[in-house]
Amino acid sequence: MTKTNSGRFFEDYKIGQVIRHAVPRTVAEGERALYHALYPARHALYSSDEFAADCGLDGSPIDDLIAFHTVFGKTVPDISLNAVANLGYAEGRWLRPVMPGDTLRAQSEVIGLKQNSNGKSGVVYVRTQGLNQVGEPVLDYVRWVMVRKRDPDAAAPETVVPDLADAVAAEDLIVPDGLSFADYDFELAGESHRLGDYEIDEKIDHVDGVTIEEAEHMLATRLWQNTAKVHFDATNREDGKRLIYGGHVISMARALSFNGLANAQMMVALNAGAHANPCFAGDTIRAWSEVLDKAETSAPGVGAIRLRLVATKGDSANFPLKGEDGKYLPEVLLDLDYWALIPV
Amino acid sequence: MTKTNSGRFFEDYKIGQVIRHAVPRTVAEGERALYHALYPARHALYSSDEFAADCGLDGSPIDDLIAFHTVFGKTVPDISLNAVANLGYAEGRWLRPVMPGDTLRAQSEVIGLKQNSNGKSGVVYVRTQGLNQVGEPVLDYVRWVMVRKRDPDAAAPETVVPDLADAVAAEDLIVPDGLSFADYDFELAGESHRLGDYEIDEKIDHVDGVTIEEAEHMLATRLWQNTAKVHFDATNREDGKRLIYGGHVISMARALSFNGLANAQMMVALNAGAHANPCFAGDTIRAWSEVLDKAETSAPGVGAIRLRLVATKGDSANFPLKGEDGKYLPEVLLDLDYWALIPV
Amino acid sequence: MTKTNSGRFFEDYKIGQVIRHAVPRTVAEGERALYHALYPARHALYSSDEFAADCGLDGSPIDDLIAFHTVFGKTVPDISLNAVANLGYAEGRWLRPVMPGDTLRAQSEVIGLKQNSNGKSGVVYVRTQGLNQVGEPVLDYVRWVMVRKRDPDAAAPETVVPDLADAVAAEDLIVPDGLSFADYDFELAGESHRLGDYEIDEKIDHVDGVTIEEAEHMLATRLWQNTAKVHFDATNREDGKRLIYGGHVISMARALSFNGLANAQMMVALNAGAHANPCFAGDTIRAWSEVLDKAETSAPGVGAIRLRLVATKGDSANFPLKGEDGKYLPEVLLDLDYWALIPV
Repeated sequence: MTKTNSGRFFEDYKIGQVIRHAVPRTVAEGERALYHALYPARHALYSSDEFAADCGLDGSPIDDLIAFHTVFGKTVPDISLNAVANLGYAEGRWLRPVMPGDTLRAQSEVIGLKQNSNGKSGVVYVRTQGLNQVGEPVLDYVRWVMVRKRDPDAAAPETVVPDLADAVAAEDLIVPDGLSFADYDFELAGESHRLGDYEIDEKIDHVDGVTIEEAEHMLATRLWQNTAKVHFDATNREDGKRLIYGGHVISMARALSFNGLANAQMMVALNAGAHANPCFAGDTIRAWSEVLDKAETSAPGVGAIRLRLVATKGDSANFPLKGEDGKYLPEVLLDLDYWALIPV
Repeated sequence: MTKTNSGRFFEDYKIGQVIRHAVPRTVAEGERALYHALYPARHALYSSDEFAADCGLDGSPIDDLIAFHTVFGKTVPDISLNAVANLGYAEGRWLRPVMPGDTLRAQSEVIGLKQNSNGKSGVVYVRTQGLNQVGEPVLDYVRWVMVRKRDPDAAAPETVVPDLADAVAAEDLIVPDGLSFADYDFELAGESHRLGDYEIDEKIDHVDGVTIEEAEHMLATRLWQNTAKVHFDATNREDGKRLIYGGHVISMARALSFNGLANAQMMVALNAGAHANPCFAGDTIRAWSEVLDKAETSAPGVGAIRLRLVATKGDSANFPLKGEDGKYLPEVLLDLDYWALIPV
Repeated sequence: MTKTNSGRFFEDYKIGQVIRHAVPRTVAEGERALYHALYPARHALYSSDEFAADCGLDGSPIDDLIAFHTVFGKTVPDISLNAVANLGYAEGRWLRPVMPGDTLRAQSEVIGLKQNSNGKSGVVYVRTQGLNQVGEPVLDYVRWVMVRKRDPDAAAPETVVPDLADAVAAEDLIVPDGLSFADYDFELAGESHRLGDYEIDEKIDHVDGVTIEEAEHMLATRLWQNTAKVHFDATNREDGKRLIYGGHVISMARALSFNGLANAQMMVALNAGAHANPCFAGDTIRAWSEVLDKAETSAPGVGAIRLRLVATKGDSANFPLKGEDGKYLPEVLLDLDYWALIPV
């Protein structure tokens, strides 16, 4: 009897199946400090307990992306150990702040299956939920991946492709209890731009670049207990490089976007996301953003801004995205669509 | 008058001498987070306060190996600054969990001395004890090292070689107060295997590999305030590599062993250990385990499993250990013998 | 309208101007753990809550240099984004310990301006103050930098060069409330040397060397939210190296100075400092110190020692500093002048 986990294959997933992922994780001030060491994160709400308290919270929450990566990491052994590709995200929402000391666990429901025409693999759609220690949901999102079949001759399941929204509707965004930007301190936050200062279709070059080292992305990826071996084992590839966890690029780009979007404080929805090209150590990551939409919320002074966040390993000043063929340019690493809360 | 510490030499040790090691250290949630960033550690009892509470503890303890490395690190300036080789460990026991906020200090008693026949060095045996802030012992172990003499003409001490047990007896294992695996959640822990599922002599390939970077092992070794210069100073060797602290390999192998031994939660004894070959940055570490013994304890649902843990920089699938000459194969880095607590 | 921060230029500064720097930061146990991972820091007062309590404090403070780097980092976007050179420090004092959980912010007053004769740049002098969450000052220091002009034709301001003390006078040093070294445990602290054991003009070679990796200095520099791009962006230079934040060298040298100055526990004044030559990954840092002055304080058993701390990327045994031309030798990285508290 083999004791190690060889992961699930395409034929192991059934519609409606609920997978309770292993290894709950308490996240606290240590994870917060490491996040600041790994990324140039400066959003004031996640940096200062005082600033967060002045915005009506009990203190500075754990970064939204720590919550995302931690929940995502738990799903890897069950969802993507045999994945060929991480295809997309949709309908992601942060539902309540994660505070230092909270313990996160995760579970996923299989909501879609579609065998590929080659019969060797298929697409699995799961809705993943992160829960805290009292069972309250802290975030959920849909993710779909291409997974290999163990047995190419296994029968194809009935095709079910979930009907997913292009974006979370502004009225479905969850604003944390008590949040208020009525007395927001723009000077301490680092920039004076409020929601009204941004125009839909406006593009912002975030200017700064960060070159990535192997040690850094491995520290980050392990921190989220994501154990996919492509990120850690240099013998997997002839050039000894390790494929960088896509979430590392997300966090790096989001942190870089402070320069121009310092007041886009809290991520509240993940509308879509594509890891356009692989990222490796030695790449220098830059980022640019595009304003896709704007909305109001019912909380005092709190608006919402929908942003496209693009990470590139080339120049960001010319806003690289797709070529004339509609495909991502080779230097583009990430195309992320999210909602953030920002003072009106 | 020189102000710096040049370390003790062989002739400076006397049987019965007690050395109180310097620099007590408070370990807390920051050290815990860093441990998760440095190693692919996923044992649930050390990851989740909730999981630990459900096992009868007050919360998630600091990893047993954080306690070991911290205590070990304190001994380096007094015991192994002039050591030629770290020869062995015996009779190690963890005596009570270290909780976040505890402060550790260490002291060692010299229990054996044996000058080498070349007259230039000798073997020093010490029993080291780690203590918490209220003076309670948290772990103890015997370690012996080969230490240079300052003066080759110094007289040889009377030879005293302590009588050390091959392994800690099962009845001498200390189970933490309150620990119970009666309601153990195997699904959250990550694997279904309980003590009864393992056979003595069974070998488990832990499959995954992690390639080590200079920055990582230096961060880890500094974190335990281990300042042996071979780990940090690239000018010590012509190739600019730094010798990796043996404890870094122990932690890496133990973390990798999660895959197949996810329920071997708590380390309670260190029976023996050999750093078979040096490890350098660029090596990809894999691990395999062998079940050496099994035992029951008096705590509800808590059994004990004695394991050989082997780290290799080559393939782990063929369980490399020793050649026909009885010597460790060149790819073997570590051969560790320990007891862990596991649900029956 | 551009949304990103392009920094201030020389002509943007006015005498008397007060700049309230952005992004307050809560520092806690995670930052403390990372400091121990990044530097071989072993001063017992910052390592152990018990040791600190035995010295009359409420617990172990955050390292004085964490406070300094955090405050310094906040000033970068406003003071040194367009700086050509970091020219000096003076009149720095730590005013009260920073405890885990404290939130730091920073503000600077422009106290001097002097346009360079080339008309393209000028020297800006600022007095920077770090404040905690209740508005108490925790440190202040004067720093001067050479900053480019946006418009070479902009009129030169009236020259104002502040009159700065060569060193903080011993009687102006602030000893933390309650601090006592009356019951100081020299054995636990790691060395037996007290103030009386040091002679003015005595030099101490700290012996140990640490080779620096790119990942490490970037983790450190980000941790202090210092975002100067020269530290992170390998495309800035043809050789792909990143200029290492001068504060990283300060912390490395100060930590190395434990070996010979283990009892120089608390930094209380920064008299002067020069980053003599740039530091790059691959450099092996060593340090030596010179005793410049000694003083008493009114606190029980607490003396003060004024030290020159020199970091070098070459040998430290010959105490390298300046050549016959009075210029720093090419291997010298740092020349720092500070006061520390030490048992009498």
